[in-house]
Amino acid sequence: MVGATGYSGFELTRLLNAHPRAKKPLLLKRAEDTASADLAECYPHLSGNGGFPLEPFSWTRVKNAGVDVLFLCTPHEVSRAWVPEALELGLRVVDLSGAWRLKQAAHRGVYGFEDSSCQRTAEINDAAVYGSPELHAAKMPGAALVANPGCYATSIILALTPWLRDGLMDRSAAIVCDAKSGVSGAGKQPTPRTHFVEVSENLSAYTVFGHRHTGEILEQLDLGGDQLQFTPHLLPIPRGILSTIYARVAPGVSAAELEESLRRFYAGRKFVRIFAAGALPEIKYSLHTNFCDLGFCLEPNGQRVVLISCLDNLIKGAAGQAVQNMNLMFGWSESEGLA
Amino acid sequence: MVGATGYSGFELTRLLNAHPRAKKPLLLKRAEDTASADLAECYPHLSGNGGFPLEPFSWTRVKNAGVDVLFLCTPHEVSRAWVPEALELGLRVVDLSGAWRLKQAAHRGVYGFEDSSCQRTAEINDAAVYGSPELHAAKMPGAALVANPGCYATSIILALTPWLRDGLMDRSAAIVCDAKSGVSGAGKQPTPRTHFVEVSENLSAYTVFGHRHTGEILEQLDLGGDQLQFTPHLLPIPRGILSTIYARVAPGVSAAELEESLRRFYAGRKFVRIFAAGALPEIKYSLHTNFCDLGFCLEPNGQRVVLISCLDNLIKGAAGQAVQNMNLMFGWSESEGLA
Amino acid sequence: MVGATGYSGFELTRLLNAHPRAKKPLLLKRAEDTASADLAECYPHLSGNGGFPLEPFSWTRVKNAGVDVLFLCTPHEVSRAWVPEALELGLRVVDLSGAWRLKQAAHRGVYGFEDSSCQRTAEINDAAVYGSPELHAAKMPGAALVANPGCYATSIILALTPWLRDGLMDRSAAIVCDAKSGVSGAGKQPTPRTHFVEVSENLSAYTVFGHRHTGEILEQLDLGGDQLQFTPHLLPIPRGILSTIYARVAPGVSAAELEESLRRFYAGRKFVRIFAAGALPEIKYSLHTNFCDLGFCLEPNGQRVVLISCLDNLIKGAAGQAVQNMNLMFGWSESEGLA
Amino acid sequence: MVGATGYSGFELTRLLNAHPRAKKPLLLKRAEDTASADLAECYPHLSGNGGFPLEPFSWTRVKNAGVDVLFLCTPHEVSRAWVPEALELGLRVVDLSGAWRLKQAAHRGVYGFEDSSCQRTAEINDAAVYGSPELHAAKMPGAALVANPGCYATSIILALTPWLRDGLMDRSAAIVCDAKSGVSGAGKQPTPRTHFVEVSENLSAYTVFGHRHTGEILEQLDLGGDQLQFTPHLLPIPRGILSTIYARVAPGVSAAELEESLRRFYAGRKFVRIFAAGALPEIKYSLHTNFCDLGFCLEPNGQRVVLISCLDNLIKGAAGQAVQNMNLMFGWSESEGLA
Repeated sequence: MVGATGYSGFELTRLLNAHPRAKKPLLLKRAEDTASADLAECYPHLSGNGGFPLEPFSWTRVKNAGVDVLFLCTPHEVSRAWVPEALELGLRVVDLSGAWRLKQAAHRGVYGFEDSSCQRTAEINDAAVYGSPELHAAKMPGAALVANPGCYATSIILALTPWLRDGLMDRSAAIVCDAKSGVSGAGKQPTPRTHFVEVSENLSAYTVFGHRHTGEILEQLDLGGDQLQFTPHLLPIPRGILSTIYARVAPGVSAAELEESLRRFYAGRKFVRIFAAGALPEIKYSLHTNFCDLGFCLEPNGQRVVLISCLDNLIKGAAGQAVQNMNLMFGWSESEGLA
Repeated sequence: MVGATGYSGFELTRLLNAHPRAKKPLLLKRAEDTASADLAECYPHLSGNGGFPLEPFSWTRVKNAGVDVLFLCTPHEVSRAWVPEALELGLRVVDLSGAWRLKQAAHRGVYGFEDSSCQRTAEINDAAVYGSPELHAAKMPGAALVANPGCYATSIILALTPWLRDGLMDRSAAIVCDAKSGVSGAGKQPTPRTHFVEVSENLSAYTVFGHRHTGEILEQLDLGGDQLQFTPHLLPIPRGILSTIYARVAPGVSAAELEESLRRFYAGRKFVRIFAAGALPEIKYSLHTNFCDLGFCLEPNGQRVVLISCLDNLIKGAAGQAVQNMNLMFGWSESEGLA
Repeated sequence: MVGATGYSGFELTRLLNAHPRAKKPLLLKRAEDTASADLAECYPHLSGNGGFPLEPFSWTRVKNAGVDVLFLCTPHEVSRAWVPEALELGLRVVDLSGAWRLKQAAHRGVYGFEDSSCQRTAEINDAAVYGSPELHAAKMPGAALVANPGCYATSIILALTPWLRDGLMDRSAAIVCDAKSGVSGAGKQPTPRTHFVEVSENLSAYTVFGHRHTGEILEQLDLGGDQLQFTPHLLPIPRGILSTIYARVAPGVSAAELEESLRRFYAGRKFVRIFAAGALPEIKYSLHTNFCDLGFCLEPNGQRVVLISCLDNLIKGAAGQAVQNMNLMFGWSESEGLA
Repeated sequence: MVGATGYSGFELTRLLNAHPRAKKPLLLKRAEDTASADLAECYPHLSGNGGFPLEPFSWTRVKNAGVDVLFLCTPHEVSRAWVPEALELGLRVVDLSGAWRLKQAAHRGVYGFEDSSCQRTAEINDAAVYGSPELHAAKMPGAALVANPGCYATSIILALTPWLRDGLMDRSAAIVCDAKSGVSGAGKQPTPRTHFVEVSENLSAYTVFGHRHTGEILEQLDLGGDQLQFTPHLLPIPRGILSTIYARVAPGVSAAELEESLRRFYAGRKFVRIFAAGALPEIKYSLHTNFCDLGFCLEPNGQRVVLISCLDNLIKGAAGQAVQNMNLMFGWSESEGLA
């Protein structure tokens, strides 16, 4: 794994270390990373579980180590640059950045990757599997590159897919997704925005239009930009996401049908929990787990529905989903190491 | 004042105590209130400023004290029962409960006051002034009963009034108000819902449809129930409200026109601060003040607008607005004791 | 288990449910407990892992269920009353209350149990094993009753035992233990003390002299009341304890000796982590784990030492330590189900 | 004022702006300060109160402005360098840094100022008044340079001075001061230490021996280094300090005598509030005020006493105390602009 010192990388290290089928992960750091020689120096949480040496990254080291799957917890520019070389070496890759999630050039604009004039890059981009195991499990065993989804995107895509596929929604009305996230989603780099005094006792909206995760959401839900509004907020808590989704259902659709649609779609899937109609998830229920929790209220005698989706941005929104994808890539139970 | 031991009552006591034109308030407690003999025993914050004796409430005591204005920080049932008697005695009243805010019987249903078959009650209800000084300042000098607005309602009504009145909004699209409040809005009574361990590290939505403040918002904005969706959330902070409002503007409306509309409407009003187009308020800016902060983003090349409204639920959302109303009732500057 | 609805009981349920050698626990509730029929209704965190039915407690139910060990997460009065009957039935008991922790009658005064004139009670009290696995592991296999330690007591006893036993401390100077705990230590009952608005943005000391855990600490460390001062504080966080311990070491004792003493005493023990001299644990490192973390600074050229001890009050301070004790009682590795 | 962009400088700006006798402060920024042209851009809290232009600092600008008192919210190196020049110009200075607080060269070592071989510097250092208005009010009217105390130091010095002066303490026993502060005490610069995710849900001790404020405390209390142990902790709250002080009283001293000593010493002083014996202050009581709150518990039948001292580190611990000093320097009531 490259990038263990960030919050997602740290969680991924924890999960892989405890995974019954994975070997202890090889932790590699980029030249820019001045972190110490052992991850337990940054994260004393890890001590008492043996060493977690951080080695300088090189392709030679990766080859010699006999790595089966390369996890990239790297900035999207780095992931975009490194993945072709990794695939060339025959490695399978799970990339946690946004570099390979988007099929439409227009959506890639926010990352500066709208142009894929290089044919190899275009092929890789086309072949990359969007790493939502609940949507694309069948593609994982054959995937060379899995583009692990964004945290906000996961919460919204899992919430809306069943009703949209089952035709239960009024598609003429725009869907509003008001999302709220804990601060770890903003990364480990200290900035004025992540200073304790600035965040605590506070709430703020940001990137009101055009947040990077919007493209993923639209592509996976097959919606146009006018059909969905997504605005994130920064919560004064370290982790967790709650998305409040406002929509209209098709005429005559009942709460029972809505609940049944969710239950049917996620039947047999371990990591999406459906609450009974009228019961709502809260952030704390899914913290430190790989669950995404879904619940909704349908307006009495009305068409309006409010759908709540909660998850832990570092687990189901990042490292846990990455492990879930790895499990499917290697033909294991998707819940190995995640229960 | 009756009800100083609650959070709003405590803030009101603080404000009145420091008010340059008000006498030290007479604090009265209902028989049910087992609080101690001095408010500074519940709130040691107050000590060092002289005594704050809590006396048992009686109409005789009120009469003898020569009270000019009676503040009721009481449950709505109590306010509904007491106000007629207070008016009978010639007192002017500022009621901080929801008892007298609603003109339409249907909206009063959530409080159980839909029926005003008693003619005196109906007259009082009709004559009550909705205590939004930015909307109804002209009525305050003559008001016998001011119904101080709800905290959420204040944040949403102040945000939307100018654009609706100026015809800048697309009224065919429903407005979504996703509001978030600190815990003091839930009152001082300890409940499982206000337990620290339940609230901290968490976020939850509640009363998804039909929150009590919905009626006030619809009446003051002159909207039908289908035109506005209001859903509140409980934030892990002690105080402050941020409302995120999703709407569509009328075709061709520019960000400059939207900003100008807000500035024009609130010209000369001290306690609404307008942020430049594209700049957004955060909860912390207005904490411990009587300001309501408004800011918005208009979608580039689009009709969608996101409007953010922030205030301190205990000050502008309750006690501060009550003092502002008092100032206007007595012909003083609205900012006396609030700067 | 009796008492799963409290915070410790909930954590114990989680741990036992995931324990590789334990059966799914039988959850029993006392008549006073009005909780719902399934623990997942109180704690939706548990859903997705099968049912957690809460059955009314009766000795008949306990007998018929073939229970191997009875966990009591009950008030100390209840534990004091029930344990004799449980032992009579041949059950082994781990009691998480303070009912059976204290050998000296004077120390039991805070619980109202100073008098053990009943001979059977006195025998049980004498035979009870204080459930600190790092101190009394050898007694666990034969123990009928294990009195699981208090959370504060665990943090202080584990910190001070090695140096006291090794004679490294200046016993003429009183030891000061300034301890700070998250709010879950105050229990799940909503009170003014646990209201979010009262706790957040705050810190307070309480029970400055004579906190209930003082007796345990003195007995296990074999100190007199004058030799140790223990004062707890309430932190605005949901869980975790940090104890700052001020002491003097014997003349000439070096930091290396102090560190060596800790390492030697806890050699082979999984759940006490020793930090290098001069490095200090923080609360977050041990949250959600069964670790107790110890670190210290020795004054340069001096005799003063500050020792920091951190743990999660619900895991190592309660449920995790209970499972660790169970493991030792049944001859299993002490880390089964806790890694 | 120089340095308005830091947390103390911002609070000082707020206080001076609302001060009935002070003109609106002239805000100057050092060349290193890249802050914007108006303080309200960094702190939108200030908007609605006119402009707060930030001008580049120069001595010419200071002279021309007719400044009566220069507040320095600057790093201690800067304050050490600038004060001689300011005094040369005939300005009176209140310095909020640690540059001029310490009389003993050994104590100044932590700032790198142990050597005052320059005679002018030595004279200034000797003449500087330690800015504790409760201790040195009489010196303020004539003071050219007031060295505003450290926040921790204020909380401990105010707590211990009366008993030490009245001979009520057992001086043979070392005093332990376990202090806890909110994060604003660590400054506005984003660092790994102030990152929200690192601080929240956490508590940590730091600078266990030799914190910079130790020298001030020892000098003002006239104690030797062995007689007092001071260790600070970082609380997961934005502001506020609580110091828990462990000491022994002289034989036979009663709680009434202790309380009386505090009340007598602070008689006529507005900003120290004494709690009745056995009642303890909490951080929240003094937040956003200039009060220092003192309370204590004496051990029943014992000599041990625990004394709690609380204040707001940005107000009484910095900006408020600076205003209080200014009031005394100019012969005004010490509470002007602070009530």
